[in-house]
This record gives sequence, C-alpha cells and structure tokens, in this order.
Amino acid sequence: MYRSHNCGQLNASHINTEVTLSGWVQKSRDKGFMIWVDLRDRYGITQLIFDENRSEKSMFELAKTLGREFVIQVKGKVIERESKNANMSTGDIEILVSELTILNSAITPPFTIENETDGGEDIRMKYRYLDIRRNPVKESLLFRHKVAMEVRKYLSNQDFCEVETPYLIKSTPEGARDFVVPSRMNPGQFYALPQSPQTFKQLLMVGGMDKYFQIVKCFRDEDLRADRQPEFTQIDCEMAFVNQEDILNMFEGLTRHLLKEIKGIEVDKFPRITYDYAMKTYGNDKPDIRFGMEFGELNTVAQHKDFPVFNSAELVVGIAVPGAGEYTRKEIDGLIDWVKRPQVGASGMVYVKCNEDGTYKSSVDKFYDQDDLSNWAKATGAKAGDMIFVLSGPANKTRAQLSALRMELATRLGLRKPDEFAPLWVVDFPLLEWDEESERYHAMHHPFTSPKPEDLHLITTEPGKIRANAYDMVLNGNEIGGGSIRIHDKDLQARMFELLGFSKEEAENQFGFLMSAFQYGAPPHGGLAFGLDRLVAILGGQETIRDFIAFPKNNSGRDVMIDAPSVIDNKQLDELAIQLNIQ
Amino acid sequence: MYRSHNCGQLNASHINTEVTLSGWVQKSRDKGFMIWVDLRDRYGITQLIFDENRSEKSMFELAKTLGREFVIQVKGKVIERESKNANMSTGDIEILVSELTILNSAITPPFTIENETDGGEDIRMKYRYLDIRRNPVKESLLFRHKVAMEVRKYLSNQDFCEVETPYLIKSTPEGARDFVVPSRMNPGQFYALPQSPQTFKQLLMVGGMDKYFQIVKCFRDEDLRADRQPEFTQIDCEMAFVNQEDILNMFEGLTRHLLKEIKGIEVDKFPRITYDYAMKTYGNDKPDIRFGMEFGELNTVAQHKDFPVFNSAELVVGIAVPGAGEYTRKEIDGLIDWVKRPQVGASGMVYVKCNEDGTYKSSVDKFYDQDDLSNWAKATGAKAGDMIFVLSGPANKTRAQLSALRMELATRLGLRKPDEFAPLWVVDFPLLEWDEESERYHAMHHPFTSPKPEDLHLITTEPGKIRANAYDMVLNGNEIGGGSIRIHDKDLQARMFELLGFSKEEAENQFGFLMSAFQYGAPPHGGLAFGLDRLVAILGGQETIRDFIAFPKNNSGRDVMIDAPSVIDNKQLDELAIQLNIQ
Repeated sequence: MYRSHNCGQLNASHINTEVTLSGWVQKSRDKGFMIWVDLRDRYGITQLIFDENRSEKSMFELAKTLGREFVIQVKGKVIERESKNANMSTGDIEILVSELTILNSAITPPFTIENETDGGEDIRMKYRYLDIRRNPVKESLLFRHKVAMEVRKYLSNQDFCEVETPYLIKSTPEGARDFVVPSRMNPGQFYALPQSPQTFKQLLMVGGMDKYFQIVKCFRDEDLRADRQPEFTQIDCEMAFVNQEDILNMFEGLTRHLLKEIKGIEVDKFPRITYDYAMKTYGNDKPDIRFGMEFGELNTVAQHKDFPVFNSAELVVGIAVPGAGEYTRKEIDGLIDWVKRPQVGASGMVYVKCNEDGTYKSSVDKFYDQDDLSNWAKATGAKAGDMIFVLSGPANKTRAQLSALRMELATRLGLRKPDEFAPLWVVDFPLLEWDEESERYHAMHHPFTSPKPEDLHLITTEPGKIRANAYDMVLNGNEIGGGSIRIHDKDLQARMFELLGFSKEEAENQFGFLMSAFQYGAPPHGGLAFGLDRLVAILGGQETIRDFIAFPKNNSGRDVMIDAPSVIDNKQLDELAIQLNIQ
Repeated sequence: MYRSHNCGQLNASHINTEVTLSGWVQKSRDKGFMIWVDLRDRYGITQLIFDENRSEKSMFELAKTLGREFVIQVKGKVIERESKNANMSTGDIEILVSELTILNSAITPPFTIENETDGGEDIRMKYRYLDIRRNPVKESLLFRHKVAMEVRKYLSNQDFCEVETPYLIKSTPEGARDFVVPSRMNPGQFYALPQSPQTFKQLLMVGGMDKYFQIVKCFRDEDLRADRQPEFTQIDCEMAFVNQEDILNMFEGLTRHLLKEIKGIEVDKFPRITYDYAMKTYGNDKPDIRFGMEFGELNTVAQHKDFPVFNSAELVVGIAVPGAGEYTRKEIDGLIDWVKRPQVGASGMVYVKCNEDGTYKSSVDKFYDQDDLSNWAKATGAKAGDMIFVLSGPANKTRAQLSALRMELATRLGLRKPDEFAPLWVVDFPLLEWDEESERYHAMHHPFTSPKPEDLHLITTEPGKIRANAYDMVLNGNEIGGGSIRIHDKDLQARMFELLGFSKEEAENQFGFLMSAFQYGAPPHGGLAFGLDRLVAILGGQETIRDFIAFPKNNSGRDVMIDAPSVIDNKQLDELAIQLNIQ
C-alpha cells in the first residue's frame, strides 16, 4: 500500500497517528540538522520533517539528496507543527518521518512547478504533463469535470438520455471543412469526423428518444484563430414535442443550476433580446451586458448640419463611456489610433467630453453647438464626467467597430468582471445570410433550422428577411450555446436545400436519409449545443480555453508533446489506397 | 405547449383531468362508432378514445384517417377505462379526445414497430431511426445511459476525475491498425484516431491527476468479426500510487456497485485465478464459471495403455457433462461432428457414459477397462448420469477445442443463464507471447505493462516465462475489462521496447515523449479499461452488442443508414495533399 492518506487530508485530529504518504517533493529546505520537505499530490501539500537527532542516520542522508519533483513514499508520525500555517488545510501538522523510500527520481523540470511559472506557452505545451502538475491547470481540469458531472446529473434528472452518436460519419460539403478518414475496407471512400452530431440527434428524435444529450467531441478543419481548437467539446441536446419557449426554459434552467451549484450564484430570469435589437444596441449578436454603454443612434441629431463626414454616413452612432471624461488628449488620441487599426477599421472618431458643469467639449465644436451635443448626450445616456465616442459610416461595419471599442473600453475600465455573470438569450436570428463571394444565401445557423411560420411567405420574395426559430445563449460577451427549432417536414426541408443552392441530386445524396426519415412520422423537435470548453472557461473566470483542455493543440493544429500529426508508413498508405500529392 | 403529460404518466389519480398528449399512433381500432388509438411515446402508451356520439363530427372523421406512426397531438379528458389492463401503467384510464391535431403523417414503415418485428437485420439498420422506436432497442439505449451514469457517479465519488484526451493523435505501428486522418495544415502528415488513450492516461498520472477515468470512443481498423465495431467505447481508468491489489479492489467495487444498482444483485468477493489455472481448468483465459465442467487432465490415467491416439498426445483432457449420460448415439455423433468442424478443429472425440449403476460405457472399451474409466470419472468429477467427453492432442490446441465444446454444451444445456452473474479476476498473465509469423515476442497486454519484479531475472534467459502485473475482469465468459500495472521507469520501458523488437530510433520516435516524461518524476501507476458496449450487453442479459449502440456499422464498416463511408470531392483531396491509389 503506497499511502494511508493523501497529502491534503491530515490535520490536528490525526496527531500521533502513524501514516504513510506518497507524492512529489515540492521543495526541500535543508537547515543542516533539520530538513523540511513539502510533499505534494493532487489533494494538497503536507510538510515532512527529518531531524538529525530523531531520524536514523542513513535515512537523514537520503533525505538530503531529495530534489524537486522526486517521487517519494514516507512513513511517519503526525505531530503538531511549531509554526502553524493557517492558509493550508494541513498547516497545523507535520510528519516526523521514520521511513523514506525514493519511488522515482526526477531531473530538473524545464520550468518551475508553481502557480506562477517561469515557463512560456510553448515549453508548457511540450511538457504538458508537467504543466498539469501546476495548480491552475490541475484545478481547471478538476473544475471541468465538476461542470460536466453537474450537466449530466441535471439533464439525466430531466429525463434526458445520453446517446453516443458515431464518430465515423459521412462528409458533407456544407459548413466548415471536414476532417476525413480513409476507409481501408472501402477503398477510395472516406469517413468524416463529425462537426456536430446534428443529423443523428434529429434522427434520434424521429426515433422517439424524446430527450437526448451528449457531451461529445466535434471536429472542424479550419484555420485556427487564437483560442480555437480543431477538436472541441459540445454539450449537445435535442428535444421532441417542444417549441422555442420549452427549450429556452429547459436550458436556462440548466445554466442557472450550473451557476448555483458551481459558482454559488443565483441569477434572475435571463433577459431575451432579438438579434435586431442586439445589433442595434450593442453592434454584436453576443453582447456583454455586465455593463451599459448601449449604442445611441445619432442620425437624427447629428446629420443635416455642416459636418460632411456624418452627413454622408449611413449611420452615426455613439456610446457614453462612464468616467472617461477625464481622459487626456493623449489617451483620446490613443483610442482614435486604436479604432483606426486594420483589425477595427474605423476611419476616424469624434469625441464629446461631458463636463461636470453641464457643458460639452467636442472634437467637432466647429459644426455642433451645445444644444446639439446635449441631444447627443441624451441619445447615448451620457452623464457629467462621461465621454461620448462617435463613429460613422456604413451601418453594419460601423456597429461592429463601435462594438469593438465598447468591449475594449469595458476591459480597460475593469467592467468585465470575471466573477459577475450576466447571461441572456438572443432570439429571432435571420434564417439566411447573403454571401457576396458565392453570391448565394447561406444558412445562418444550419440548413435544418426552421423558419418562423409567420415569415414563410417571404420565401420567394425576400428570403433574407425570414427570421428563424433560432436562439443563442450569451454569457459575458460569449456565445456559449446556440440552437434552433428544426424543420421536421420533408418538403420544407427540400425547399430549404433549394434556397441554399443545393441541386435536387446534391440534397438527396447528402441528406436523403434525413428527408426520408421525415416521411415516417417525425415529431416537432429542436435543441441546442453548448461549447463546453468556452463554458467552463467562463465559469472559471478565465479568458482562454486552453488551460481547461488537458492536451490542447497549437495554432498549426499540432500536438507538440507527442509530435502529431506525423508521417506514416507507405505500407499504411497502400493499405488505405491513397498516396501523397504534395505540390 | 405540445403536451401536459407524457404517454406513460396518467393513471386513475388523473381521472377528470384535462390533458394534452403528443406521440405516435401505435395502432388504431375502428369499430365504426368508436375508434380506439394507442398513442405511444418514449415513456409508454396511453389509450385514446374517439366516440361518434360524444366527439365532434369533423374530428371523428379525421381520427378515421390516422395510420400507424402518424404523429398527433390530442386534448381531452382522462376517464376510467371500462376494460382495464393491469399490464400497463396507464391501463386504468383512457383519454376521451376533444381535439385532434395531426402533427405529421407517416408512410408505412418498412417493418413493424413492435417488440418482435418482421424486419431483418439489414433493413433495421438502414432505417435505424425506426428500429429505435421499438421497445427492445429504445430500452437498450436507456439502459446504456443508466449504466454510464452509475459508472460516472461511482468513480466521481471515489475522487476520479474524468479528463478528455485528444482524438487526433499520433499513429503508431504497434498493435492493431490505426484509422488515420490527413492533416491539411501539415501536408503529408497524418493524425491517428486513438485505439485507446493509453499513453495520455499515463501522462496524466505523471502529471499528478492521481485518479483518472473517461468514457471514451476508441477506434481500430481491423477486419470486423461478428459483433465487433470499428469504433467502440471504453471506460478507461488509471490510478497513481497503487499496486495491483488496490486496482482489483477499486474496480471490483465498481462492478459490484453496478450489479447492485442496475440489476439488484449482490455478488460475493470475486474469485481470483491465475492465467495458468484458467487455461488448465477451462482452456480459456475468460472462463464462464456460472457452471462447472472443469477440465480433468487424463494423461496419467489414460496414457501407457493400448490406445495409440492418447499415447502419442501431449495432452489428454476431458469434461464431465451433467445429465448428458442420456444422449443418444445420434446426439453423440452430432457432437463429434461439431468438434471436428474447422472452426473447432478436433480430429476426433472419445466419450464415456457414466451409467446409473456405477458402470461405464465408452467408445474406447477396447482399450480401457472399468477401473480405468472410473479413474477418468474421478479426474473429471463425473457422476452417475454424466457423460465424459475426452479430447487429445497438442496441449494448447486441445484445451481451446475442449473449451469450445464446454461452452457449446453449456449453451445447449441452458447453463449460461442471462440473469446469473459470475464475475472473476484472471491474474498473472504472461508478459509476452511469441509470434510465429514475425518470429518475435509481442506484448500480450501492451508494451507499457510492468513485468512482475520477481520474474525480471528471466528477461535475458526465458522472457516468455515472465509474468506480468496484468489482470482481466471476466464476466460470464466475456473479458469485460483488462489492465495492468505500468512501467514507470525510463530504462525498464526502453528495455521492454528492445525486447519487442523496436530499434532505439523507433522507440524514441514513437514513444520518446513517454520515456522522457518518466524522467521527471513518474509515480507508480496502473489501471484498466472496460469495454462499455460489451459490459452493458452482458448486464442487459444479451449476447450481442448491436442493440446497445445507437447507430452501429455493419461488418464492412459501413453505416448503411447514412451511406458512409463515401467518395469525397477532388477539391477536398487536393486540399489534403493526397490522391487515390486504387489498384
């Protein structure tokens, strides 16, 4: 038996107990006649003491050789510590060691195994198994497990059944790029790894499973932006005999449960806003509503004056930034430069300082008088001490630019508090979006999303105006889940594929099985999927998902620890009936 | 709202309640003035009644059009049934329908949606979504979910942390064939899908996660024998600071918990037998011990007489079959033909009938007298009324043949009762097995398995005799789980790769990251993996795993429902820098 207790377990109630512990040497302090060792495992740290006067000589000498990260086993007696440490659960005691066994030695780790490490991202990824020893990473993985368990418990209690759908499925050109898997038994043919179990969960509804969920890996072969992974995890859910309201209530319930169980936070009923409102008010379909700074549209009060930039703009829109009235000219110039960066893309920015005395000072005082600026303040909700920033240009682009500024300023002002949670629903997404490049409509959510029945009459005239029964759950500026009511009628599904530019043959080839299934009595159904990686990161109060994934890949899709992907044998290629074709 | 209750919920306590139900038409009986409809959903069946005298005329006419598997919604009042059905939870009531909505019609299904269907395997797989509507399949999927939840609860309560390991990993030629995934971002390179998360779970132990589990899909590109799937699910577990005893106790605990919670069965402490004992006693390393028929070795009592077949054999071995003394000559000849089939491969079989009067009648009376046969009876434990069957030949082959016969007879005699559970551990597996074809040793479990320290001295002289710290959990003749204590020492791991015929370079290329990790303080560790598909099938009392998998593949690895694998676009191939190479 390697241990009687773990390293986070012992306290004053164990004094005089003989115990056996195993773990890693966190650090060792050798005072000549006394050696203290911090012994670490997943559960905590326990202080060991070797005493020249009380310990056997050979063991004492052995203890002197212990280096960081050595794996040892000790037997000894729990004794009261002289200088107690109230910050540790084991801080009242230490172990007077009577037996020491070195289970494994360790060479010097390439970075320090501390909460704040000296290791950079790359070296931490290469030695991820050492990085996982660090508290922040270890705790993130334990936290992820806890969230996943709570999700499973909650959904199981609500009669959801977790069903495993296949990983080796069929490639479809719709959506993102598939990862594919050559089939040895079917030469020339390929499986695809699922981008989501979408069609399978719908077939489970046709199959009468009623309430399905799955915590499942999904795969997208896309160029990796920061904080994206080629494989990611979804909480995938579907329900039959439901309308949108049923689904919003169910998964609002799940999220409230998680916030309560995991974070101890009770939140009010989630606000629901439409996609149009979100875009107009926040310039963004996943607004962070932990703070205000809602958009004020200024067309009526800023146009038809003598400022040609605004007069020619489709949209003039501003935000009032609390407390920013004190910004120096240099700070303001910095912000103007910031919005002009290619990533944001504004051509300029107007500002209005709201003085404490009720007057205004703006960068466009030449064109606007105090009354004008007072109207701007009203439209943006600005108060004395605020600064109003105004952008103008084409509506969509300008909203996106102002949204970027809003988020940047909120971050700078510390308004995006990681321990504050402001969830909401965004509903009534457009069914389609026009793609300039391919000159056709794309499904905004996916081709299985149901149009709102009351908008169906627009299908031949103005399909771009059809709203979908689609919804996103947004938390602190992140879309953490999204879904829709699905089409469950064969003809409507066929019509949708047509609208998306599928030929009849393509639709039949790729999704014939689904349309066929709809003929055999498909129930109304809908669902949603949460991104688990993002959800746990946000619940954990972190900006990046990487520490919540045990073995993440880098931005080239490589696992630098195991060095994958890698070349494979010609024999393997031959068996798979493929060969390389490198340009 | 599509329903106020589900179809398994209503009973006499709801009489006079107005309810809304949705579901599928299981069947409809039209008696002219009265129509009864069985409405089905996942939760049960509720009887609906449409009454010409009490129903609105247009609705009554609509009800006449309802076909099997139509999806409908009804509103109505719960009333007491005249002829109650005690076999149904809803058997005391019916719904007098006041409103009927057809949510979706259905064409005639290709097979009947009944517990006993008229659909063959192929058609059921093609329309799997309809097959899932059938009770036996639906219940199997719900059962699987229940088992998985219990596993997760138990292990979580024991401080195990579920960690998701990557699906896009590195191909290694050791073991079975990998499925591979070409990397677009790294042209000419491939990921592999994991055959198991073996190295990752070991790295998690090096990383101090202490207790890991994961219910995870694994992949093997092997020719599919019956009841094997290219993708299958493991309950994968690993623990640090444990010896074999700790692991056996932990997972015996899990299995006892499952038997108790899922089946309501309490089992005694699991017997533990060695691999050698299992092979000698059952001819098999996964013995079904729900019944006896243990092997009796007859060399000492059957050789050195005048029967040349036995005299020249390495092994003469028999089993006593209870109650088979009554077998007719024809039945016996049938069994002799059975063991001579190529799948079994015996060249002949000797039998001894144990008469009720204590005498024996055998097929070798020419060579053996009553005393001889009495000794055979003693060695095999035969009693009056039994039949002894004896095979002879090379030891390993003969044991395998007799094992096949033992299982066949147990099946015929009804001794393999699906509701009886007899788990055991088989321990002390050999570390290596000699492969005649490649003329080298293979790892019997895998290359990371630890040899027994007391056998290590055999490594240069008789490596084939080294026993491993490896163990299998066996349930009712199936290996449901297997594992080992792992090597955690870099040099021993390198020595093992050498023994398995890896060059230094190959070992470093493929598993360098693991050996490197062992240098940084690897703890002693070990684990095991259960096959979830098999485990749930056995707990469910079934022989085949297919009904416990929502969307299984056929023996050619095809999903016939979605028609995968399939050809992909040349554009996709180009992007992946591969081309077809079909001979």
